[in-house]
Amino acid sequence: MSAPQQDAELYGETGLPASGLRNYWYPVLAAWRLRRRPKAVRLLGEDIVLYRDGGKVYALADRCAHRGAKLSYGKCLYAGSGTLSCPYHGWTFSGETGRCVAKLMEGPQAKIPDAAAVKSYPARVLAGVVWVFVGDMAAVPLEEDLPEYIAKTAEWSCISTWRTYRCNWTVMKDNLSHDQHAPFLHRTAPELLFQPIFPHASRNLAIPLEDGKGLGHVAEGGISSAEYPGLGRFPTRRESWFRILRPVGRGKEIDRDKSPAVVKYGIKFRQMSRLPSLSLIGRPSGDYFVCRWVVPVDAGTTLLYTFNLFRRRGPLAAIGDWLTWVLWLSWAHDWLFSEQDKWIVEAIKPGPEVLSRTDVGVVAWRRFAAANARRPQPAASRPPAVNDTAAE
Amino acid sequence: MSAPQQDAELYGETGLPASGLRNYWYPVLAAWRLRRRPKAVRLLGEDIVLYRDGGKVYALADRCAHRGAKLSYGKCLYAGSGTLSCPYHGWTFSGETGRCVAKLMEGPQAKIPDAAAVKSYPARVLAGVVWVFVGDMAAVPLEEDLPEYIAKTAEWSCISTWRTYRCNWTVMKDNLSHDQHAPFLHRTAPELLFQPIFPHASRNLAIPLEDGKGLGHVAEGGISSAEYPGLGRFPTRRESWFRILRPVGRGKEIDRDKSPAVVKYGIKFRQMSRLPSLSLIGRPSGDYFVCRWVVPVDAGTTLLYTFNLFRRRGPLAAIGDWLTWVLWLSWAHDWLFSEQDKWIVEAIKPGPEVLSRTDVGVVAWRRFAAANARRPQPAASRPPAVNDTAAE
Amino acid sequence: MSAPQQDAELYGETGLPASGLRNYWYPVLAAWRLRRRPKAVRLLGEDIVLYRDGGKVYALADRCAHRGAKLSYGKCLYAGSGTLSCPYHGWTFSGETGRCVAKLMEGPQAKIPDAAAVKSYPARVLAGVVWVFVGDMAAVPLEEDLPEYIAKTAEWSCISTWRTYRCNWTVMKDNLSHDQHAPFLHRTAPELLFQPIFPHASRNLAIPLEDGKGLGHVAEGGISSAEYPGLGRFPTRRESWFRILRPVGRGKEIDRDKSPAVVKYGIKFRQMSRLPSLSLIGRPSGDYFVCRWVVPVDAGTTLLYTFNLFRRRGPLAAIGDWLTWVLWLSWAHDWLFSEQDKWIVEAIKPGPEVLSRTDVGVVAWRRFAAANARRPQPAASRPPAVNDTAAE
Repeated sequence: MSAPQQDAELYGETGLPASGLRNYWYPVLAAWRLRRRPKAVRLLGEDIVLYRDGGKVYALADRCAHRGAKLSYGKCLYAGSGTLSCPYHGWTFSGETGRCVAKLMEGPQAKIPDAAAVKSYPARVLAGVVWVFVGDMAAVPLEEDLPEYIAKTAEWSCISTWRTYRCNWTVMKDNLSHDQHAPFLHRTAPELLFQPIFPHASRNLAIPLEDGKGLGHVAEGGISSAEYPGLGRFPTRRESWFRILRPVGRGKEIDRDKSPAVVKYGIKFRQMSRLPSLSLIGRPSGDYFVCRWVVPVDAGTTLLYTFNLFRRRGPLAAIGDWLTWVLWLSWAHDWLFSEQDKWIVEAIKPGPEVLSRTDVGVVAWRRFAAANARRPQPAASRPPAVNDTAAE
Repeated sequence: MSAPQQDAELYGETGLPASGLRNYWYPVLAAWRLRRRPKAVRLLGEDIVLYRDGGKVYALADRCAHRGAKLSYGKCLYAGSGTLSCPYHGWTFSGETGRCVAKLMEGPQAKIPDAAAVKSYPARVLAGVVWVFVGDMAAVPLEEDLPEYIAKTAEWSCISTWRTYRCNWTVMKDNLSHDQHAPFLHRTAPELLFQPIFPHASRNLAIPLEDGKGLGHVAEGGISSAEYPGLGRFPTRRESWFRILRPVGRGKEIDRDKSPAVVKYGIKFRQMSRLPSLSLIGRPSGDYFVCRWVVPVDAGTTLLYTFNLFRRRGPLAAIGDWLTWVLWLSWAHDWLFSEQDKWIVEAIKPGPEVLSRTDVGVVAWRRFAAANARRPQPAASRPPAVNDTAAE
Repeated sequence: MSAPQQDAELYGETGLPASGLRNYWYPVLAAWRLRRRPKAVRLLGEDIVLYRDGGKVYALADRCAHRGAKLSYGKCLYAGSGTLSCPYHGWTFSGETGRCVAKLMEGPQAKIPDAAAVKSYPARVLAGVVWVFVGDMAAVPLEEDLPEYIAKTAEWSCISTWRTYRCNWTVMKDNLSHDQHAPFLHRTAPELLFQPIFPHASRNLAIPLEDGKGLGHVAEGGISSAEYPGLGRFPTRRESWFRILRPVGRGKEIDRDKSPAVVKYGIKFRQMSRLPSLSLIGRPSGDYFVCRWVVPVDAGTTLLYTFNLFRRRGPLAAIGDWLTWVLWLSWAHDWLFSEQDKWIVEAIKPGPEVLSRTDVGVVAWRRFAAANARRPQPAASRPPAVNDTAAE
């Protein structure tokens, strides 16, 4: 886990592979969307068919080993067997191993060579989401790749949404790497509109997390307003007279001495970046995180999976959390705030960059990810692939 | 006629050129669709304009030799001359030779160099269809490329339809090379739904036709049902309880001792593959064939021309044949049955294959076609190009 | 100004760069279409943002130097400063120099390296149109690239329109280089329908203009009708019986001895081609020119900017000119006549050509342009870039 991925085409000046970091678990589909019919998805440029059978979820390469038809057009003919049959000649594949277990048009005695197999992807359901491991090694346990706020479903509840962006995954992850665009781009978002301009930092830090899986972002000495020679004040009066609220919610920083997040829960960073491609943004209360997981579909398409994570504090708080999301966050953040990011990341063209002080988090993240991304281990040194379905 | 075509890009693992076999006649357009206006078609990746004049049909390359405008935007200004005039500056080309015979903007004395010519394609109308020869040699007689069931219009009547598929021509021809997908893919087609699952062969043969132009396909010892260990029976009970009819029509094999096709007419094969890219599928009665001609448009597009061929047995039988097509075949076969094939061939991605016993016909066809496809002969050794219009 | 542009991909057999001739001014947008919001345009394959501020028009490369976002999504936050701010992090660029003058998220003390700049394009408004200079040198004065009929706004009034064509710019310029397609292609246009077929020349000349900026086209000894052996007369009777008018307007040539254009105004050519890519077509009266400026958008897209230029002869004549355009030219020429050209140039495929006598103007133009197109001069030898807005 120490060298960057090799032989992959890098994206622009990021030093990261254009099609995504391999050998990680990614969230790909709301579990409720996978029903009786197999479903085709695309992940890191690979076409994959997902299907359910016997209470488990399976993921196979979506191209029959026989003559190349899409397995996602096929059916699970034998309930409980965990197999999927190709629609063309009935080659039937095990979801567990990817091996062909029957050629339905040739009788049970037909020989099945080793080549009669498709790639099988480890898949699981957790927190209402189907997760798939894409890589070139035996899968690590899913929990190894999840932030505790998602993994510990007994302590955190989760409402998740998703959206597709027409951009490379690195462009979206840059956007989420504490890159100080929020005070400017999002100054008109409902969450920030009536507060002072979110302070833009004069000192930005990126500090490795203790578990080695990412970075914590810190901003110090921020300013919200300044006079620019030859131009005038930013924000202009026209954009600031209505900013009458005090900082609250998204607009309020963690107070290292007073915030419950620090004092009560020991949460050190308000914003974190983690491998392979997710960001966690918390609140001073320590009771809420939004996790935004950037899922590479292919070099030009990205799925952004958003997890609203609420600390379980009893049934009344749960109702409050749910109402908060339905009445406010779903609209103000998951839709409008995100729409501003979508608008901008889809308008970015690759090319030379001139990085600056606002990009401390971006630069730190790119270097960290390039240096620390998991690389394939010899399969023998790892436990075999896991393919169970956890309770949601 | 002994070596594969050279210098052409091959498609996947087929060993056949991606853009089609050159130096053959292909059906391209229902004759009634070619009226006063020239019509642009695409064949083996070449853009061609078809037009009618003086009772003949002509085919020219659809790009003016002068400045590159589409001749299909032009007009036949001089009825009976067999010429087509470019819309831009009026260069006028002979449909017979492709040579420019007048530059209407330069007067009759204008010099016309040899380069002032476009490629001329031999074209004919037969059985209600416009046929075009695409290749690099003088055309063979059209009848040399037609199965007798189409060529002998006095003995066979014909109802033809067409449909465009988004796939390579080899994918569609594989589908028609007796590849044993019918029992599985088409088990729900109206023609087969209430019959036992069409037997899938335990022994498949491909036998060269006597005229050297193709292969006859034979299936022996087929089974319709079997128990697969760990899975269960195929077909499942859920898919088989309603299969109460006896085999009939498409579902009934030729009986080599009793079928009129063999006894009365000497037809040896129920299913045949022929160069360049057509399949013939008959009935035990010997009175009907469906001919499916796979016409390469370009490497990613295929035109499937379907000929329903009825043996002429008098006016009453003709009415019966016509009603059979209108009330049954047009719906059950040319539409629904074909739709299943279209659905699957458009879902096939090129890549490695693991061929199997069901693919005996496919493998035999690919090898036969690669080895026996016509290759250009020196023009002198052949009769000049034919460009007549036969009575339909 | 003597050698063809180097290192550029040439288009077909034209000898001219596929993306257009650099180092010229081009018309890009009607001035009234540029309002408060910046506007993205594309010119010679370069993405450019236009914006207005403080009565001037500016043009910058439409990609922020910082992280690559589109500046055309940004705003002019500081009225009168001539700056445009990137929507992502607020980098603010001078329209005059292209340099970043403030990073709004980093405070006024932030260092701004030299690389923090985008390309700035000289831009001006004249005759109601925004003009942009695209090249690799300091801009020449706009008037140096304009025909006097556009430049001298006190003597000529102007009504301009535009239209986008899906073709390379050379295809459209060829069409306008006196290439003798009008008698054929446009014989059915309203302007020519009832006149004799426009004479097609038996002798075509292309004569360099005195200012060295283009060619004058001359046609001599034209014929309108001829008998073609084996075909018949062109035009055919069917196409000519209704041609009862005498030549008028567009159909009437300049008389070198009597036409006011020559006698009164000293205009030598009825039709001229000028660098970089425009054509001027006049009338014997000398009081009207149509200027058609072929603007390369990218290698496959062309903007055709049409200027209807009327000599100012007092208020009554102005009303007459305006009515002429509204009631006749806008419909008969700018729409229908042009539509015929659009139809044909979009149907031209690149490839070999067989040039002929009708192409004298085309050949002469291609050679002239390749040999005489402006090439970058050392910036020191020229006056600095001009970026003023002229009165319209």
